[in-house]
Formats: sequence, C-alpha cells, structure tokens
Amino acid sequence: MKVLIGSPGTVSGLMLRLGQCLFAGASIALMVSAAGFSSYTAFCYLIASMGLQVLWSLGLGFLDIYALRMKRDLHSPVLISLFVVGDWVTATLSLAAACSSAGVTVLFARDVGFCRSYPQLECSKYEISIVLAFMTWLLIAISSLVMFWLLASV
Amino acid sequence: MKVLIGSPGTVSGLMLRLGQCLFAGASIALMVSAAGFSSYTAFCYLIASMGLQVLWSLGLGFLDIYALRMKRDLHSPVLISLFVVGDWVTATLSLAAACSSAGVTVLFARDVGFCRSYPQLECSKYEISIVLAFMTWLLIAISSLVMFWLLASV
Repeated sequence: MKVLIGSPGTVSGLMLRLGQCLFAGASIALMVSAAGFSSYTAFCYLIASMGLQVLWSLGLGFLDIYALRMKRDLHSPVLISLFVVGDWVTATLSLAAACSSAGVTVLFARDVGFCRSYPQLECSKYEISIVLAFMTWLLIAISSLVMFWLLASV
Repeated sequence: MKVLIGSPGTVSGLMLRLGQCLFAGASIALMVSAAGFSSYTAFCYLIASMGLQVLWSLGLGFLDIYALRMKRDLHSPVLISLFVVGDWVTATLSLAAACSSAGVTVLFARDVGFCRSYPQLECSKYEISIVLAFMTWLLIAISSLVMFWLLASV
C-alpha cells in the first residue's frame, strides 16, 4: 500500500488530526459562549457534530502518535477501511452541521434582520464558529480523500 | 480500467444520471411553487444548486446515451478525472444547499414556530423539496464514489 501525505501513522497525518481537533474545539467553544444558541436546533446540532469530530480525530491522533513512537505500520486494508468509513461519516455530518447553521445565520443576518433587531443575538460569534466548522470540514475532507485513495489503490 | 455499476457509458450509469435529473427537477418545481420562497437566501441557493445539478447530470446522461448507442468506451483517465471533479463539486454543493435549507425549515417549523404563526408559509412544500434534494445528493454521492474508485484504481 502506498504512503501519501496525510496517511495514518505519519507526521502529516497527525498534523491533520490535530488541526481537526483544534478547529472543531474552537468552533464548539465559540458557539457555547454565544448567548441563546440553545434555542436553535441547527446550532445544537453543530455542537454535537463538532463534538463527535473532536472524539474521532483525537482517537486517530493518539493512534498516529502510537504508530510513530512504536514505528508501527497502520496501512492494513482492514484498518484503512475502518478509517474511510469513520472519516466519511464525520465529514458528511460536519458539512451538514456547518451548512445548516450557516443557513440559519444568513437568515438572521440578511433575510429577516434579527441580528440588527435583537442585539442579544451574538451573530458575529455564530459566524466565526461556523467558519471554524467549515475549516474543520476542509481538513477532514482531505483526510477522507487520502484514506479513500489509499483503499482504492490497494 | 474496471467497469463498475454506475460507470459512465453503462445503463446503470445512465439510470443514476436520470434519477439525479428527476429528483433535482422535482425539488426545483416544488420549491418554485411554494409561496414566498424568494425571501430566503437558503431556498434560492437550493434552486440554483439543483439547477446546476440538472445541467450537469443531463449533460452526462446524454454522453452515456451517445456512448451506449455508438458503443464507445468512456473509461479514459482524462474523462474520468473530469467526471470526478464535476461530480464532487456538484455533490458538495447539493449537500450544502439541502442542509442549509433544512436548517432554515427546522427553524421555521420547530424553533420559532413560523409555520404555525404564518399559514402563508408553505412549510410542507419546503420540506418535500428538501427531501428530494437529499435524494438527489444520495444519487450524486453514489456517482462520485464510483468515479473516484475508478480513477484511484487505474
């Protein structure tokens, strides 16, 4: 099996996982700190989805560290299949969460003007949290493509 | 290059493309027929994204018909690369559009109760249109995975 940039058990793979954890964690922290987020299903779903992403990426990050320290090879077809399924599921959920929250925020900011009418809605925090969620998705999408490529080119 | 179910230039590939056109077209028709959709950015974006999907899938559908009638093989790496990029871009846009519209509809139906308060909002039409958009995404996701698998296993 080939080794690509972002493969499991490599330094670049570990960097990708750490980046995913970092952005997802920052997205959760900002959303939780914004007043009134819990009244909106989309924002709660964003937190749940980013939480799942943190758990998944953290788990694979620890696996990368273990593989790097012990010089183990994680390129077995069974392991890669598992990574592919997990990466694709979390990537799809992250994109769905980021987009549904973005839809609601655009509605608040532009379509119905709630951000101007209700200053207690912390729209700028919502927006930054969503941008961070999109960045998380971008990183997990890269991981997913690398894993799928590895699996398909066995 | 292998030939899989859903490969370009096969009957199953043509069926997938026709299904994508059908669901995307139905999603657009329902959304356009719902009163007041144009006031909401997410719903306008859904129509634009589904329109792009119809154009892309129709184009590839015609190419499949041509290949089937003329018995041409569409499995060249250059063509498959082109299909992969187009399929992934339209699949991502379709999922993003379906999710952002779903976020707004859930907000209307559950979080702020606009569907009950304003009967002129045709929430059930929005919902069916979004379900059709998700079905379009499911079909284009299958096409995308098949194309990527074909490209990676060259």
